[in-house]
Amino acid sequence: MRIIHSVKEMQEFSNEAKNAGKKINFVPTMGYLHQGHLTLMKEAGKNCDILVVSIFVNPLQFGVGEDYEEYPRDLTRDVQLAESVKVDIIFAPTVKDMYPSGYATFVNAETITEVMCGASRPGHFKGVTTVVNKLFNIVQPKEAYFGQKDAQQVTVIERMAADLNMPIEIVRVPIVREEDGLAMSSRNVYLSTEARKQAVVLNRSLIKAKDLIMAGERNKEKIYQLIQETINSAPLAEIDYIEIRDGLNLQSQEETLTGQVLIALAVRFGKTRLIDNIEVEVPVNV
Amino acid sequence: MRIIHSVKEMQEFSNEAKNAGKKINFVPTMGYLHQGHLTLMKEAGKNCDILVVSIFVNPLQFGVGEDYEEYPRDLTRDVQLAESVKVDIIFAPTVKDMYPSGYATFVNAETITEVMCGASRPGHFKGVTTVVNKLFNIVQPKEAYFGQKDAQQVTVIERMAADLNMPIEIVRVPIVREEDGLAMSSRNVYLSTEARKQAVVLNRSLIKAKDLIMAGERNKEKIYQLIQETINSAPLAEIDYIEIRDGLNLQSQEETLTGQVLIALAVRFGKTRLIDNIEVEVPVNV
Repeated sequence: MRIIHSVKEMQEFSNEAKNAGKKINFVPTMGYLHQGHLTLMKEAGKNCDILVVSIFVNPLQFGVGEDYEEYPRDLTRDVQLAESVKVDIIFAPTVKDMYPSGYATFVNAETITEVMCGASRPGHFKGVTTVVNKLFNIVQPKEAYFGQKDAQQVTVIERMAADLNMPIEIVRVPIVREEDGLAMSSRNVYLSTEARKQAVVLNRSLIKAKDLIMAGERNKEKIYQLIQETINSAPLAEIDYIEIRDGLNLQSQEETLTGQVLIALAVRFGKTRLIDNIEVEVPVNV
Repeated sequence: MRIIHSVKEMQEFSNEAKNAGKKINFVPTMGYLHQGHLTLMKEAGKNCDILVVSIFVNPLQFGVGEDYEEYPRDLTRDVQLAESVKVDIIFAPTVKDMYPSGYATFVNAETITEVMCGASRPGHFKGVTTVVNKLFNIVQPKEAYFGQKDAQQVTVIERMAADLNMPIEIVRVPIVREEDGLAMSSRNVYLSTEARKQAVVLNRSLIKAKDLIMAGERNKEKIYQLIQETINSAPLAEIDYIEIRDGLNLQSQEETLTGQVLIALAVRFGKTRLIDNIEVEVPVNV
């Protein structure tokens, strides 16, 4: 496995690999890898000649007062983990190389970035689409892999890639969970022992909601209330949002649910904000 | 020469050409080709296997009340002219194929787009960078050619390509002029006979300004006044802007000119807005 820090060197490597007819697949990450990332890497590695993983804590997607400085970092450990799943290249650029003095260009997918996490974190998705656009141009992959855990993020990136005609396929990989159902996240390390126990309410409330829909309930408000009650049963949990939306375009669902529904949550435990989601294909009533 | 209308077909063509090791060069245009465009095409064609020219009047870069609907179009004539300079592919997509329903993603270079033409035409450069970004991803050229006539435009596109790490070289080609010095433009056809005669003041004022600098004048205000007087000598001319800026980053020059100076003009003749510019390397006083 090779570690590349320079943007220029990475791009030259990719140019040469592509000229030699090699297929590159790509997993962008902010590092502090966990089983969820490794699952993405294993999937991405199945069907390519060269597997590139980027590790870059992107300042542009953190707002004022968010956890950019404190975001956990451990490149040595990340390199070992990536090697264990047969990554070929770790691309770990510096902030200065990614955003040199005079940097001025931003990519933004409008509308779908103004709801959910976009409403809680203004500017967040503009930072995400900008860095992912840059990484795609540097690494030039055929396929790029993203976790379904950040459901809105992957929808926004699909939107950007399609709108800008990027010659890249976006692949979604299902959420990887701890044994008790908590979605894996680099931020889970911030949780106190008690918060960690209670954090299982995110997944639990989503499963309950899905079960209720599959049992015939179609009323959005009822589903919402069930989720709210379940989360509020955890004393440390503070709801940021509960969203019940169309899974394809993230528009609000009508009062009566139909089609592909995305239920997405953001819940705070102290300073730590966790997200989770579930997709439900609403059965057609016969 | 082949004419491609479909975005998908164009991108597949480019994918295959690149896989076969071919070098693609590219000239994006809004059509209604004149000698200036043909010069770009001849330059671009010198050093590639496949020369692609796009013809697309991009609605996104026209503001409300601007001349999108009236912008001159003549694909039959454009095809003949392109064929005469050995273009391989004309890519002429439809608006619907470029901006399908639900389109939401925009690319914007900030700061340098807020001055000069960006101040006169809010949103214009956001439309330019967005469409050029899309065209680059569709056509996937090694080099893309732009005319120095739109000096700010090519600076903005260089900024975007560098910031987003696009693996594409931007090449500037000098302004092509009519015999009397008027910069070639598709919009020149709008001019009345009398306005056409007077329009020569743009180029004339720029040459006078350059001569004055080369003769030793360094005071920005004096240069400005000379240009203003020269343009105002044409009764039909109405000044939109006279800008004396740093040629590299488009920042304002100090009162005493130094380094690479870009003098750029926008002047209206009735409804028709013409632009022109000159670059002057200020001699170092010994």
